[in-house]
Amino acid sequence: MPSNRSTREWEDLEVAAGNGVLDRRAFFKGGAAFAAAMTGYALSDSAAAQQLADDPWSAGAGSLVPAYGVPSRFEKSVARTLSNPNGEPRTHHARTPHHLINGTFTPNALHFVISHSGIPDIDPDRHRLVIHGLVRRPLVFTLDALMRYPMTSRMTFVECGGNSAPLFSKEPIDATAQALHGLVSCSEWTGVMLSTLLEETGMDPKAKWLIAEGADSLALSRSVPMTKALDDAMIALYQNGERIMPGNGYPMRLLLPGWEGNMNVKWLRRIKLVETPAMSYYEARTYAPILPNGKAYQFYFLQEVKSFITHPSAGLKLNGPGFYEISGIAYSANGRISKVMVSADGGRSWAEAALQEPVHAKAFARFRAPWRWDGGPAILQSRAWDEAGNVQPTRAQIIAQRGETKTVPNVAGFPSQHYNGPTSWGIERTGEVKHVYA
Amino acid sequence: MPSNRSTREWEDLEVAAGNGVLDRRAFFKGGAAFAAAMTGYALSDSAAAQQLADDPWSAGAGSLVPAYGVPSRFEKSVARTLSNPNGEPRTHHARTPHHLINGTFTPNALHFVISHSGIPDIDPDRHRLVIHGLVRRPLVFTLDALMRYPMTSRMTFVECGGNSAPLFSKEPIDATAQALHGLVSCSEWTGVMLSTLLEETGMDPKAKWLIAEGADSLALSRSVPMTKALDDAMIALYQNGERIMPGNGYPMRLLLPGWEGNMNVKWLRRIKLVETPAMSYYEARTYAPILPNGKAYQFYFLQEVKSFITHPSAGLKLNGPGFYEISGIAYSANGRISKVMVSADGGRSWAEAALQEPVHAKAFARFRAPWRWDGGPAILQSRAWDEAGNVQPTRAQIIAQRGETKTVPNVAGFPSQHYNGPTSWGIERTGEVKHVYA
Repeated sequence: MPSNRSTREWEDLEVAAGNGVLDRRAFFKGGAAFAAAMTGYALSDSAAAQQLADDPWSAGAGSLVPAYGVPSRFEKSVARTLSNPNGEPRTHHARTPHHLINGTFTPNALHFVISHSGIPDIDPDRHRLVIHGLVRRPLVFTLDALMRYPMTSRMTFVECGGNSAPLFSKEPIDATAQALHGLVSCSEWTGVMLSTLLEETGMDPKAKWLIAEGADSLALSRSVPMTKALDDAMIALYQNGERIMPGNGYPMRLLLPGWEGNMNVKWLRRIKLVETPAMSYYEARTYAPILPNGKAYQFYFLQEVKSFITHPSAGLKLNGPGFYEISGIAYSANGRISKVMVSADGGRSWAEAALQEPVHAKAFARFRAPWRWDGGPAILQSRAWDEAGNVQPTRAQIIAQRGETKTVPNVAGFPSQHYNGPTSWGIERTGEVKHVYA
Repeated sequence: MPSNRSTREWEDLEVAAGNGVLDRRAFFKGGAAFAAAMTGYALSDSAAAQQLADDPWSAGAGSLVPAYGVPSRFEKSVARTLSNPNGEPRTHHARTPHHLINGTFTPNALHFVISHSGIPDIDPDRHRLVIHGLVRRPLVFTLDALMRYPMTSRMTFVECGGNSAPLFSKEPIDATAQALHGLVSCSEWTGVMLSTLLEETGMDPKAKWLIAEGADSLALSRSVPMTKALDDAMIALYQNGERIMPGNGYPMRLLLPGWEGNMNVKWLRRIKLVETPAMSYYEARTYAPILPNGKAYQFYFLQEVKSFITHPSAGLKLNGPGFYEISGIAYSANGRISKVMVSADGGRSWAEAALQEPVHAKAFARFRAPWRWDGGPAILQSRAWDEAGNVQPTRAQIIAQRGETKTVPNVAGFPSQHYNGPTSWGIERTGEVKHVYA
């Protein structure tokens, strides 16, 4: 009987960490390794064929093919959650539903958005990009002009400095990965390297910073060191193949791979080369909190190594004991993810997860680990390393340095930025998943 | 003066092929290499700053952030063209606008669709996948069951066997890359390897083929050799991160990387293991044309190495002489693209293009070559090689073997399938681009 064989192979699988985390090499052994997962119904051949009685949607012609496709009506819940759906005069947040998507990047329709004054309705034919200040030849670029330059495509994540802020809360907040970590997304961006344009304008050696300014009504501006501008900064024109989405900066944005989201100025209209930073609102106030030691936590550009499990996670439910894949995303401003470890017993023991190849620098890496749930309580965690040797700190280490809050922190409040510790998902006997501290 | 320096460097650039194709290594020399492109307006600093007078969209708060993002209203033309917009009882084709997008894959909303009976409106909770026939244990899978299995993500293209059929026409058809080549697209697909499920059902050694059947009203079915099924076939559940789009097979499709699109059965409901192929409609009739030598061109699974230039191409216009980037896509069922050569003089001389890294097997590779247009007539072509050593045949070679048609060929007609020769774009002095034969 095949079921005997399967069960035997299943039991032979090496347990790599406590509470049923299996060796990732099981992925290379083929399906028999997971056969006793028994997630398919075993039926006689005739009974299986009976399952093929026509469903109503097979009975007649289907619907028209639209010119611009949209998801199935059964996927309506796969959407961003909005913090300001009625457009009150304050910031809008739209969060990515990480627990409802899969793969290694974020679809455009679900990329996170933060906008402090709504989405400007920019006519691309009238929009201009000006590069001036400490340059030898100030230049104005139309979109048509930019389209003629050499292009580059690269996968990279963009993350708000305030992403994961709920984990500064003293008590764990029972929320989904979307609510906790929905302010990070990853796309393939295509555009013109900023260095290409700066070589054309020429640079005064006195220029040490640039000020990037958006065409939104508050003219959001941030200062960026010239070293980054000449390294891998891009004037991004396309996002996952399409022209950039309106909420993500249409028709162009500054892309600073791995750096704080707010610095990746959207609706970009001006780059001015200067000697010293502008000390703009978002660098002098919002992203410059005072630490417990009295110093300001300012100009911390990098979004450091982080990971979180998306499957299973809060909002999803386990349907009985047996095999599951633990899967999540990891990323770092310092290059490629080199390793992700996974625990099912709240961090007491760890097993190495498999990484989906290819792993891109400064982009999401999808990690996966095979897991056999015995039906009892479990706590899932992940911890990531990057190729520069950085590892996610523990939550205790972060709190010791930066403090914690008694309630859900506001993204603009102290100390609720740049949390990159682990996330713990408690699995209950019912199969429910809850955010916990462990 | 910086312009002197720029012009000198521009003139120093090595010409790699006739009519101004430059050495791709210019991409690594930085922006000065392209400076004399002069696409930005040179202005005094004060004049540049004057360009920053507020546009109307900067004058007040913008629009709400939607839960599911959509492109700018200025991008309405970036859409699929439809062959059957009124839903007459015949096949629907929706073609990808390759000349209006960029990067290395296709956004979900713009992925090509061919459907012979519309799009079925499938309830994922009621849909079942049955695997039966020459197996040891027939199994029925719900979507929830499949979601528990180990997942894999991979970039791969899907191409209709009839894509590029207009190039069999005796006279060149003046049409865009969308009209000529819009029946190929590329996505990151995430799902369960079919081999995993087949190891669980077990396989009778007599099984040499499987029949895959869709839940569309005509129950489209195709026969697939077991060797492919056990190699890299996938039950795909996600497309570019989202659940598969309705037109692309929601909630699941068979994915056969690099094989004829029609075999990648959408709305998949059944896999039956058998000894011999079913000789279904689409393998016995539509995709089995009789060749001039009297033999049927049947069971030709591979979509062989192909490339075409997307920028510049018909539908886009050159705005005066100077620098342009020639860019396009190349792909092969036989693995990675190893080389793409580009010509601006109708194939008399060639230069190697740069390939966007990483290059995935059986996926789009974006190639790019720097070009200096002198304003005179030019004919752009590309030619691709894959890592298995295959190269695109010439159009003459294909026509000699397969014949040509006097009018626009119907996708179902002889000999209009599997064209993988070059595409030529004629550049006129006005900057207009036309499809030509050369």
